[in-house]
Amino acid sequence: MTKTSWQKLGEYLHETQLLGSIYNTLYWDQNTSMPSGAATWRGEQISLLAKSLHARQCSAEFVDLIQGARQELETEIVPPTNLNNEKLKNLELLELESNRQKRLDSKLVVQLAKAQTDGYALWQRAKATNSFKQFAPALKRLIHLRQEQAKQLNESRSIWETLAQPYEPDLTIQRLNELFQPLRDRLPEMIFQARDSMSRQPFTWDFKETSQKKLCNLLLSEWGRDEKITCLARSPHPFSITLGPQDFRLTTRIVAGQPFSCFLATAHEWGHSLYEQGLPLQNHHWFAWPLGQATSMGVHESQSLFWENRVARSQAFSDRFWKNFVKEGAPFRSGLDCWRAMNPLSPGLNRVEADELSYGLHILIRTDLEIALLQEDLDVLDLPSEWNARYEKLLGVMPMNDSEGCLQDVHWSEGSFGYFPSYLLGHLISAQLSESMSSWLASQGVQSEDPIGECIKEGKELKLLSWLRSKVHHYGRKVNAEQLVQEVTGQALTSHPFLNYLETKLNILTSTF
Amino acid sequence: MTKTSWQKLGEYLHETQLLGSIYNTLYWDQNTSMPSGAATWRGEQISLLAKSLHARQCSAEFVDLIQGARQELETEIVPPTNLNNEKLKNLELLELESNRQKRLDSKLVVQLAKAQTDGYALWQRAKATNSFKQFAPALKRLIHLRQEQAKQLNESRSIWETLAQPYEPDLTIQRLNELFQPLRDRLPEMIFQARDSMSRQPFTWDFKETSQKKLCNLLLSEWGRDEKITCLARSPHPFSITLGPQDFRLTTRIVAGQPFSCFLATAHEWGHSLYEQGLPLQNHHWFAWPLGQATSMGVHESQSLFWENRVARSQAFSDRFWKNFVKEGAPFRSGLDCWRAMNPLSPGLNRVEADELSYGLHILIRTDLEIALLQEDLDVLDLPSEWNARYEKLLGVMPMNDSEGCLQDVHWSEGSFGYFPSYLLGHLISAQLSESMSSWLASQGVQSEDPIGECIKEGKELKLLSWLRSKVHHYGRKVNAEQLVQEVTGQALTSHPFLNYLETKLNILTSTF
Repeated sequence: MTKTSWQKLGEYLHETQLLGSIYNTLYWDQNTSMPSGAATWRGEQISLLAKSLHARQCSAEFVDLIQGARQELETEIVPPTNLNNEKLKNLELLELESNRQKRLDSKLVVQLAKAQTDGYALWQRAKATNSFKQFAPALKRLIHLRQEQAKQLNESRSIWETLAQPYEPDLTIQRLNELFQPLRDRLPEMIFQARDSMSRQPFTWDFKETSQKKLCNLLLSEWGRDEKITCLARSPHPFSITLGPQDFRLTTRIVAGQPFSCFLATAHEWGHSLYEQGLPLQNHHWFAWPLGQATSMGVHESQSLFWENRVARSQAFSDRFWKNFVKEGAPFRSGLDCWRAMNPLSPGLNRVEADELSYGLHILIRTDLEIALLQEDLDVLDLPSEWNARYEKLLGVMPMNDSEGCLQDVHWSEGSFGYFPSYLLGHLISAQLSESMSSWLASQGVQSEDPIGECIKEGKELKLLSWLRSKVHHYGRKVNAEQLVQEVTGQALTSHPFLNYLETKLNILTSTF
Repeated sequence: MTKTSWQKLGEYLHETQLLGSIYNTLYWDQNTSMPSGAATWRGEQISLLAKSLHARQCSAEFVDLIQGARQELETEIVPPTNLNNEKLKNLELLELESNRQKRLDSKLVVQLAKAQTDGYALWQRAKATNSFKQFAPALKRLIHLRQEQAKQLNESRSIWETLAQPYEPDLTIQRLNELFQPLRDRLPEMIFQARDSMSRQPFTWDFKETSQKKLCNLLLSEWGRDEKITCLARSPHPFSITLGPQDFRLTTRIVAGQPFSCFLATAHEWGHSLYEQGLPLQNHHWFAWPLGQATSMGVHESQSLFWENRVARSQAFSDRFWKNFVKEGAPFRSGLDCWRAMNPLSPGLNRVEADELSYGLHILIRTDLEIALLQEDLDVLDLPSEWNARYEKLLGVMPMNDSEGCLQDVHWSEGSFGYFPSYLLGHLISAQLSESMSSWLASQGVQSEDPIGECIKEGKELKLLSWLRSKVHHYGRKVNAEQLVQEVTGQALTSHPFLNYLETKLNILTSTF
């Protein structure tokens, strides 16, 4: 029997997925097991695979297969079934990506790859020596090349918007401003309120390494971890990665002096992993197709933030779980002690370590600045002073040097512009989805002002997961982030649920002091 | 500047090596981190890489590159320098392998791959159910296909010899008989002597997991481990693997009730790794070329056995190290207690768990039987009874069932014939090299009847390593195993040093009871 074009395209995608997952395995190993001296050789292995992946994604064969599948689908008498609509959506996404690739000059691709490597190396040195000037020429070059890239892509979008598409499909600056303006208005006062009424952490203690490990494993086993398809390891920076349809890996790290860092990173990465586990992957007709993939970084982040902030940092979770912490040495006398320890609200200079209240402001500053750099003629050399002025104004803190300031994040050094807003969109999406989840739980008979908290208190987090599975995860790329929120909640995305959530939490938390 | 054929060949080999080391990374991950449910997808990843590696090794491009390099080398005015001789040796080995590949019918290659997969699956089932009959048809098929393979290879060697070449280049059955006959004659009496005078282990205790880990790390750090290029992990079966010119991995395992299993497996695998670390690898002109590879499995095994048996199981090592074991809970009152506990001499049915005295007999039985199966018409169905009869005669023990008997090893289930003798050759080579090492140490002023033991007692194992580095490791495939022994020791390989070593050890050990 001869294969249909559709089948051939599927086989092509399957092999690309195999190669991609081998690439991911090298990345996983590099961050969890590889000795440092092996870096050069690993770099060569990774380049080889990247080259071959890139070649597959740009090949004439691939373009032909997509066209063949399109023709086949259009000449068939196609009833508009669900399956056929999904087929069309898959093709549309493949064509979109293929057209993007085609429009790019291969010379530019090579120049960008080199500028990214150089940028990363220079950024590392500049950060170590507190010298933004060392990094400035590389950043200028990256901005220039990315502007050029946007020009070649020639979309009916601004430069920044064009570059943000791979992370957040269909996002516009106008929409972002609508979504973020209420945060810009409201967050600084809330931070002020928190600072005014919350004291610093009363406890200083730390967990032993074996305790950290035990607590993380306990958490994951309560949250339904299947050891047959998951693996938890340690790495310098926590991450979550999928290596196959039944192979989900996550990492955490231990930070001395920050007893909850490891535990909360595990909760966060587990949220990412659960989303991937819930995608239409294994034994599904869309595995290795676009519809089997995560729809946006914002949605991804909404899932990790849900499990980290909405669940693990909730009062209900502390009330249930605090004795486990005490067994491993935490000096809590009550769930409340634990809850306060897990929720320090104090604005700082560092995005990664920021609390839920101030996190958004870190993102607003970065988003404004990268839009200014890419399409509003902000001079690279003015970046440090602009950065510092905004921190002082919005957060009331001022970096002592550029390493604490505009050099703190890796993103720009690799030429990634347009990524930062996804972090904050994740907070918004998580909050709005949580409201729908609460209504659903209430309709299922969970009697409480806070039905999510009620489930957590009873150790029934799997009920929350099953809602996410059936309502959120399964879409893959069938809808974009905003469409997903509209589908699930029946409302357009706004920042109100997030602000309401923060206000409620802040009020209860500050009233306990 | 245009590249020479030689350079192009080098680049081709380099890329093959990159792919091969990616393949090895997947294997490493599979055995150290991968969750069990991921096995199917990993199998697909591995097949994809294996296919592409095989294609590179058989490609017309590769054959042309080798021929081009040969012509280039021959038309140059070549003085017989060391470098040029090495170039010629590299080409010779590449041509040898390429010619082997060319002679094989691709249909047979596919049939063999399938028979190996089937054989392994059937063997697992047969072993679990103690039913050799379930496995017999698969074994018959494998023997038939391997006989066919030897026929196609058409070397001036017997079938078994042809199949043994990849493990032990230039080995003949006649030579093997010469080497092994003294063992056949002498080992049974020695076992009898040991059984007569040695009691069973007086101690029963076990180390905790954390203690096992601590002891292994202590051992490796005393033995000069460089953490920048090595990684130790756990896996179901211990192994050592090289993932790059600066990336050496080894694994060990913990066996409940066998307190030294983990420690000695670490010593053993570290020996393998040291050999690989000492090969002309990184920044060397023969990296990725044949001369940068291990010359034979026997030589490889000689290096692991040296560190396991000659060093870690020596009386001197126990005398120095026993207090570390006591700190972790071992009930020793002296180094002698420790030495006896690390050297139980008692013949059993299992090769992997065999002591130094009886190990050789396990190999003799397997070697005889696989030669009989492949070229002396031994019927597969008679294998169990032949196996059992030989065990009773040589070792004085009799399997209760085939799982303890002829089904215990994986090798034949994957169609690997000709591998077993390498284990025993490793013992012989290790012993003969040790004699030369001793003479050299004596000539360097180490005053003792047992200069190796003297170094160990003083914690100067790195002195032993530096001798192995400068005398043994650097050859790569420039010489075969027997040539290596001749070069290093000035004598042809014999079994006398091994028998002498065993007799001395046995006499001292039994006199302590």
